[in-house]
Amino acid sequence: MENFNFKAETNILFGKGQVDKLPNVLSSFGKNVLLVYGGGSIKRSGLYDKINQLLGDDFNLFELPGVEPNPRIETVRKGAALCKEHNIDVCLAVGGGSTIDCTKAIAAARFYQGDPWDFTQDSRLVKEALPIVTILTIAATGSEMNGGSVLTNVETKEKLSFGSRKVVPKVSILDPTLTFSVPTYQTLAGSSDILSHLFENYFNKTPNTMVQDGIAEGLMRTVYHYTPLALKNPEDYDARANLMWASSLALNGLTGSGKSGIWSCHGMEHELSAYYDITHGIGLAIITPRWMQHILSEETAERFAMFGRRVFDLEKDDDMMKTAQKAIELTYETFKEWGVPMTLGEVGIDNKLLEEMAEQTIKHKDLATEAYVSLDKEDVLAIFEASLEEMNF
Amino acid sequence: MENFNFKAETNILFGKGQVDKLPNVLSSFGKNVLLVYGGGSIKRSGLYDKINQLLGDDFNLFELPGVEPNPRIETVRKGAALCKEHNIDVCLAVGGGSTIDCTKAIAAARFYQGDPWDFTQDSRLVKEALPIVTILTIAATGSEMNGGSVLTNVETKEKLSFGSRKVVPKVSILDPTLTFSVPTYQTLAGSSDILSHLFENYFNKTPNTMVQDGIAEGLMRTVYHYTPLALKNPEDYDARANLMWASSLALNGLTGSGKSGIWSCHGMEHELSAYYDITHGIGLAIITPRWMQHILSEETAERFAMFGRRVFDLEKDDDMMKTAQKAIELTYETFKEWGVPMTLGEVGIDNKLLEEMAEQTIKHKDLATEAYVSLDKEDVLAIFEASLEEMNF
Repeated sequence: MENFNFKAETNILFGKGQVDKLPNVLSSFGKNVLLVYGGGSIKRSGLYDKINQLLGDDFNLFELPGVEPNPRIETVRKGAALCKEHNIDVCLAVGGGSTIDCTKAIAAARFYQGDPWDFTQDSRLVKEALPIVTILTIAATGSEMNGGSVLTNVETKEKLSFGSRKVVPKVSILDPTLTFSVPTYQTLAGSSDILSHLFENYFNKTPNTMVQDGIAEGLMRTVYHYTPLALKNPEDYDARANLMWASSLALNGLTGSGKSGIWSCHGMEHELSAYYDITHGIGLAIITPRWMQHILSEETAERFAMFGRRVFDLEKDDDMMKTAQKAIELTYETFKEWGVPMTLGEVGIDNKLLEEMAEQTIKHKDLATEAYVSLDKEDVLAIFEASLEEMNF
Repeated sequence: MENFNFKAETNILFGKGQVDKLPNVLSSFGKNVLLVYGGGSIKRSGLYDKINQLLGDDFNLFELPGVEPNPRIETVRKGAALCKEHNIDVCLAVGGGSTIDCTKAIAAARFYQGDPWDFTQDSRLVKEALPIVTILTIAATGSEMNGGSVLTNVETKEKLSFGSRKVVPKVSILDPTLTFSVPTYQTLAGSSDILSHLFENYFNKTPNTMVQDGIAEGLMRTVYHYTPLALKNPEDYDARANLMWASSLALNGLTGSGKSGIWSCHGMEHELSAYYDITHGIGLAIITPRWMQHILSEETAERFAMFGRRVFDLEKDDDMMKTAQKAIELTYETFKEWGVPMTLGEVGIDNKLLEEMAEQTIKHKDLATEAYVSLDKEDVLAIFEASLEEMNF
């Protein structure tokens, strides 16, 4: 295990009816609130009205609607301008990871003289930020409990991230009933995203991290258990609750602290999203089993076999490679069974830009030296190409 | 899953050499420091000198040595008086759970006009507290990352607790090398204590808490894997590191949030410690398998079987009761193999006060309605009596 700092200072208010605490929560930060949200889903669900009703005349509510699924830097600029203009005290993000990520950049940009895209080049430029409160409406990115933010620059076709403790939400309201209305496709994308965070930390070079790995295995089992239940009955409270809490814990440092190295699948998927604006979680589900297959070797088989035994309850087998292979197969097959489109073609990506995206992956992420298994441009291209076809086992 | 609040705001500095950050950590709180510690172990290990050297002339260091293994209310009173007298800015607890628990009471008593024993009657009396920094020297109670404190009143033979977010440590320094010198007996007691925290939350009535249970299972596996390694080679860094981090995460809310009900074995053990001043973790190890055996039934067998499969890697068996029984047996046998004294006689307790202690258990804890399985005085007495004899399976 390596040295680390851990702090999970976000005050999580979890459960049915916690939204009612919003006025109390916000009032400790001030009266001028910037409400940031995405499309119309919070209006359709009644949450938008509920918030307005709760805050009533006691707060000055300003709005930034229309945050994109892969949030764009222009939207951040717009939000920062609103904060300056209206002397905002606190940002209220209502939505999923995109809305929260966008809000983090806005909260920091409020105090930054340059362009907020700079943060993706150097996170240390974040010196100060407005306090952030979130109301989560989908279990997916974990952004509600960490300091990470992923932004998209459509102009330069770049999807890049920054991270700072300054933008960790102060309070996050996690009411599982708010995810009852999440459609099938987004539920799938969310669960895939949670799993990917767990995979990326779990398949890692640092040895002797049983605490982190045990937690990751438990959270993976949770996602595999409850996703089909949530798909079958979107209003299954316990399924939604477990998925929601798993999403936050998957990326709040618990499974990654004490490990080093960088993530492989996210590096590749960010190029797919930057070029084709596809749903992040779906891109991850497509890439992941091909990446696993590509890096399976005598050296990695033990870890894949452990994953299979602990997460898919595979029986012990003297042939470790067989268990490892079965685990990869189950990773792929489970996504398919859930209904995730599992080839690039199904999300509108053909072979034309694969080489360019592979090049960009390597340009943006040091996968050669920092990944679980070293990847160069040819490896990435092979994984992209394998993602065009169905997998056969 | 039930509604809950979760916040883990303690800044954890984990790993080799983190103690060097102490001056920096303390300086954000002030110059007047009360150093609280127990026996001479921190002097023997060189940690005491190291702290003095690090703090040098930049701080005004006052001392409260001699905190007892079951910390006494008199020591709390003494510490609170020192805080008032020297206008202490920050309390520095160096040691294990007893030292940290005592420090929490001192930090709160600094601002309380009455007697600090009152806190054990009503935690809400804690309105304010001095900031607390800890340097942990044993993996056991998890007190370094939560707001709980257990105090002993020798006069009234009571061992009772209080809990408040006000006394959650601001910073905890977790350097596994500081636990290299922990003797075998204390290592055993520490691991037993960690396991007990996990058991108490795991064997619980609230259904559909797979997130919490999965985390608990992962931490239990960690403790079972690394304890023998730490016993064999006390300077095994990775063993000490995993045990240390497991101890903090076992009781920081991760495995208990979203569940209700109260703990059974701790209620019983606190009486043993209050009457006989035995080591808490050892008392828990003795009580636990007898409690498990006492409550094993058609109703609880499923959970014990799951525990056996997930934690001891027992194979699936159509006879759930058989797996459950095997899991309890392994719980007992593993403690024995490690070298834990597993009967009351071995820790100097005979049958004379069992009835009185059983009565006190029921008086202090509502085990009839709030426990995993309802226990009355006769049940507790039966568990105590079973703890006099070896278990036979």
